[in-house]
Amino acid sequence: MAPKEEGLPSGKGPAATRAARKPRRPAAETREDILNKAEELFRTKGFTNVAMADVAAALGMSPANVFKHFHSKAHLVDAISVRHLEAMIERLARPDDHKAPPERLLLFVERLMESHLRDLQKSPHIFEMIVFSAGQELPCAEQYREMLIDDIAQIIDAGIESGVYHVKDSRKTAEVAAMALACVLHPVLIAKEKADILATRCREVVALIDTALQNPLAK
Amino acid sequence: MAPKEEGLPSGKGPAATRAARKPRRPAAETREDILNKAEELFRTKGFTNVAMADVAAALGMSPANVFKHFHSKAHLVDAISVRHLEAMIERLARPDDHKAPPERLLLFVERLMESHLRDLQKSPHIFEMIVFSAGQELPCAEQYREMLIDDIAQIIDAGIESGVYHVKDSRKTAEVAAMALACVLHPVLIAKEKADILATRCREVVALIDTALQNPLAK
Repeated sequence: MAPKEEGLPSGKGPAATRAARKPRRPAAETREDILNKAEELFRTKGFTNVAMADVAAALGMSPANVFKHFHSKAHLVDAISVRHLEAMIERLARPDDHKAPPERLLLFVERLMESHLRDLQKSPHIFEMIVFSAGQELPCAEQYREMLIDDIAQIIDAGIESGVYHVKDSRKTAEVAAMALACVLHPVLIAKEKADILATRCREVVALIDTALQNPLAK
Repeated sequence: MAPKEEGLPSGKGPAATRAARKPRRPAAETREDILNKAEELFRTKGFTNVAMADVAAALGMSPANVFKHFHSKAHLVDAISVRHLEAMIERLARPDDHKAPPERLLLFVERLMESHLRDLQKSPHIFEMIVFSAGQELPCAEQYREMLIDDIAQIIDAGIESGVYHVKDSRKTAEVAAMALACVLHPVLIAKEKADILATRCREVVALIDTALQNPLAK
């Protein structure tokens, strides 16, 4: 049996003793290592087949050390998703301020959908991660929702200003529009759908939303 | 080892001989037995933990005999889903022809969503079955889609007739509306959501769709 100090977070022994045994690495680096290895394993072995202990073993770490950084597989999934999300937001950061709001809305949704499709094709484990985290209310889901609603609300505000949209509460309306867009944005609903069907669906659903935005709310 | 004839479908030996060995049951009854046992096992042991062989074993049948009725787990899932679907359609068959189309639309969607939520609560394996069959294009998914689009198109037609909806192609528009409703109807998107959040979301998304239907398509 391995000595207890090897990997388990003791947190009690003097730091100097531990440092003498093993050179310390910054926690942020270890965290990145764990995320990279976990994604590599998810990709190669399938998300559901990889346990926290497998990630630890592949890194030559103790499971306890991995758990010190990520309390559960859900925390790991959340951190990986946040990385994907931040990379995506960076890729998508192309404001189309000069275009008419209806056109901006379509461009925004199309670009987001295509970005999701590329991610899913490149990293099929994302699909499994999302199914796994459905209903778990991970912070990454809330972050995605906020990003989506902010961007749509901004386009709606521009449309109100230019007189093309007739909306009272842009934020609230953006929330509803974001929900209606699940059929072209939610990974589970698009991952296995044909590209041309999705392209048509995207145009049609955005046209429906756009018609609603251009008119005062019914009733 | 059991003699080869015991369960494997031979299909060649004289029927009289087989009948003498074992009383024959109508295929439809065996089919029902398999579906009932499969659902029972999915419910008690979890969908992903139950293989076709487990269903066969629980019925004292050979796996080959089960495969004779259902060529794969996907075929089994499809048949179970069709049964749920037919039961649901029967439960929902309450036409609200006397009500105004916008109100009918909301009632229809609310009732459908609540029916899905009840099913998911009573039979959590439905959630797993749907995740499993995502993108497999099972006939049951097409049947559900057709049912949904037919019913929405009927309400839109009534709205066009009474002058409240301004829609050119009711069938096509019903397809788009059905897609936008995924956020309140698709099991993966609603299974783990709170009931009050869903009720609000349902009213808001239907109001958005309703506004679109009451106005000529933008652009």
